[in-house]
Amino acid sequence: MILITGASSGLGGAVAKQYVQSAQAITITGRNSQRLTETAESLAAIANDTDIVQAVGADLTQASDVAELFDYIDAAQQPLSTVVHCAGSGYFGDIVVQDNQQIQNLIDNNLLTTINLVRELVRRYQDKPVTVVVVMSTAALVAKAGESTYCAVKWAVKGFIESVRLELKSSPMKLVCVYPGGMDTGFWPTSGKDVDTSGFMSADEAAGMLVDALKSTQHGYVADITIQRG
Amino acid sequence: MILITGASSGLGGAVAKQYVQSAQAITITGRNSQRLTETAESLAAIANDTDIVQAVGADLTQASDVAELFDYIDAAQQPLSTVVHCAGSGYFGDIVVQDNQQIQNLIDNNLLTTINLVRELVRRYQDKPVTVVVVMSTAALVAKAGESTYCAVKWAVKGFIESVRLELKSSPMKLVCVYPGGMDTGFWPTSGKDVDTSGFMSADEAAGMLVDALKSTQHGYVADITIQRG
Amino acid sequence: MILITGASSGLGGAVAKQYVQSAQAITITGRNSQRLTETAESLAAIANDTDIVQAVGADLTQASDVAELFDYIDAAQQPLSTVVHCAGSGYFGDIVVQDNQQIQNLIDNNLLTTINLVRELVRRYQDKPVTVVVVMSTAALVAKAGESTYCAVKWAVKGFIESVRLELKSSPMKLVCVYPGGMDTGFWPTSGKDVDTSGFMSADEAAGMLVDALKSTQHGYVADITIQRG
Amino acid sequence: MILITGASSGLGGAVAKQYVQSAQAITITGRNSQRLTETAESLAAIANDTDIVQAVGADLTQASDVAELFDYIDAAQQPLSTVVHCAGSGYFGDIVVQDNQQIQNLIDNNLLTTINLVRELVRRYQDKPVTVVVVMSTAALVAKAGESTYCAVKWAVKGFIESVRLELKSSPMKLVCVYPGGMDTGFWPTSGKDVDTSGFMSADEAAGMLVDALKSTQHGYVADITIQRG
Repeated sequence: MILITGASSGLGGAVAKQYVQSAQAITITGRNSQRLTETAESLAAIANDTDIVQAVGADLTQASDVAELFDYIDAAQQPLSTVVHCAGSGYFGDIVVQDNQQIQNLIDNNLLTTINLVRELVRRYQDKPVTVVVVMSTAALVAKAGESTYCAVKWAVKGFIESVRLELKSSPMKLVCVYPGGMDTGFWPTSGKDVDTSGFMSADEAAGMLVDALKSTQHGYVADITIQRG
Repeated sequence: MILITGASSGLGGAVAKQYVQSAQAITITGRNSQRLTETAESLAAIANDTDIVQAVGADLTQASDVAELFDYIDAAQQPLSTVVHCAGSGYFGDIVVQDNQQIQNLIDNNLLTTINLVRELVRRYQDKPVTVVVVMSTAALVAKAGESTYCAVKWAVKGFIESVRLELKSSPMKLVCVYPGGMDTGFWPTSGKDVDTSGFMSADEAAGMLVDALKSTQHGYVADITIQRG
Repeated sequence: MILITGASSGLGGAVAKQYVQSAQAITITGRNSQRLTETAESLAAIANDTDIVQAVGADLTQASDVAELFDYIDAAQQPLSTVVHCAGSGYFGDIVVQDNQQIQNLIDNNLLTTINLVRELVRRYQDKPVTVVVVMSTAALVAKAGESTYCAVKWAVKGFIESVRLELKSSPMKLVCVYPGGMDTGFWPTSGKDVDTSGFMSADEAAGMLVDALKSTQHGYVADITIQRG
Repeated sequence: MILITGASSGLGGAVAKQYVQSAQAITITGRNSQRLTETAESLAAIANDTDIVQAVGADLTQASDVAELFDYIDAAQQPLSTVVHCAGSGYFGDIVVQDNQQIQNLIDNNLLTTINLVRELVRRYQDKPVTVVVVMSTAALVAKAGESTYCAVKWAVKGFIESVRLELKSSPMKLVCVYPGGMDTGFWPTSGKDVDTSGFMSADEAAGMLVDALKSTQHGYVADITIQRG
């Protein structure tokens, strides 16, 4: 079974759609129960199969919610094969105008969620061949003016994942890092940054490339992918 | 005037000592008022000058405290020339055994403090030739097993500072990044990691090299320094 | 049309096989005419189509050979769509035991070839939607004991390609970087390094993942891929 | 004794001046015998001491010359304590206009020289507390349009040195990396790049900061320094 976080919108939603279109059972999770239910219904409609999507509400900033999410998953019949962690949020602007609460949300929604999720995954499945795909951003790879705190949390996630990889050296669990560049995902209008997204990839395009790249073989896998527009 | 954060112990304390030994006026700040007062008294005794050190209590995780700190500094006679930001804390261990509260403290004490401090500095002094020295760790440069969340917050600080540098491209304010390797600073016994520190640099040795390296010239400055033991 | 360098062995050979198996016309190039002809014949046999492979001898360390190669390609009917640059060689061992001539060969076969090839490609096709895939190694991403000069030439190629990318910012030409980890390609026995390759990916496995990942969309493409064993 | 390469001009010349001004014996080396003799004479005049500078001609692109250089040094009375490797050359321009011979010179003068020098140093002194300072450029740290081959050779040197560092993990020999940003060293007028150097550091300023930063302590040393203008 495939778990997708952040599946209610953007890349997470497009990845979910890819999987149900190829008839793969998924579980989606999110904080907003109503949006989550709506997403599950619309995905089930695409697949014409009401059983293909399970929706489990969870606030990934709460370690207890994360534990309950995996209690639910472990109680289900199908073993977890893949996690695609797309949840996250953006916040932009020169550092001088950035706001306390928004910075706190940014840290919680990107760094704390990822630590909670990956810690629970390693605790439960480090002896299993589970693939954990962590979707970051090209902002994890370079510094950007006007994105200082966003780069901070994305660099944090990268440093965290690269370190956990070292701890998993002899484990069958695999961590895959994905760095998408500018996508047109509905993320920008609410991010506080004025960006012309007309030439950007759609989330569907990025999801298609991502899902294709995730196909692994017996002895190898794509460990890191940067997806650029253009 | 020179402001030093985290001056009550470790590298911050040793940097403070270096400056008062060469008769330079400093302000030190910290969360623990009693320790801060004791540090100020011991530094004043070294310099044999009770006026050389000002101690101003501030919790850098609180943006309002940071603003008050600089209200105090701006009300003093001497303009701020240099900030040496040494405050921070460590927390180690494999990700599977890491604790919620300790992770939260780690994020607050390293990432949130730095964002609050640097944001206030840029707001107030971006048109002034102020040198801001941000002391991180070699954990900001590489991934390390057993230090995943520590690497996370240090990578975050690096990504943040590199991005703010881009915003300050035409500003006289300079950001200097310092990456010390293993120091014997009293940090390790409380960090949850069992480390033989016998061959480590002392904080005094690292502080001496750091203060030497900070000497800038009319047209240039040391922007990044890695200090290694050995 | 797809051009593949280094197609006589290893990953280049496996990529060539992937393309002819899906009936895509390719041109292969290499220094050793006899091996090149044999490779072309065996690829044609796989596809059961003698016209599917063109073999053009060229020593990529010679700029004049590179120019002639593309004179030939430009004279053919099918426009160039993709270049997969797999040519390269390995040389390992602690720096104290490394040999002058082998170091020179390493520089020529990895760095000089790539500069000559990419320079000619940019000169001829920078206004065309040509995808240039440069296959390096994970040795381009990290330092490795016992591989100092190999890391040197691979880091060089990465620095070169990242810089040319900046020059091509508004060009339809795309540069894709591929970083494969340990493959079992027949490369190791002749490399001077004693390595147990039993758990390594086969070249076929890596080529399959690579070719899958190269599928681009209207607005985006996979720009960087790291392929790891495991 | 301190060995300085590339001492006939630029940063190497300024470093040499710093050392003789503080009465430290140096050996300088270079390819052009006449320039080398003139440099030695002018340094001796600064120190008012004809014995303070030894000049030894050597073409570092030739491994045999490097070996003879150290035969000479080993035959002298003073043991080698420090090497400051400043030799190198620049070549710039968009890749489409770059010239074969200039690219070859760039590779030889920057990469091959450094490999030859460091290999000989490790062979002879890996059991001695010799500090080897390798002066690169900020072009070793980032990609730059118009500097693709220059970045290539500087990234190569960085990858090489970082790898040799791993081989020297338990050696008393230390490798120090220096990354200077834009200096006004007479390098630019002959480099093929039109640059306004009026706000650049002078070589003397950079050398002063560099020599200050090189002071090590019993248990630590500055391992990496980036020097920026501004």
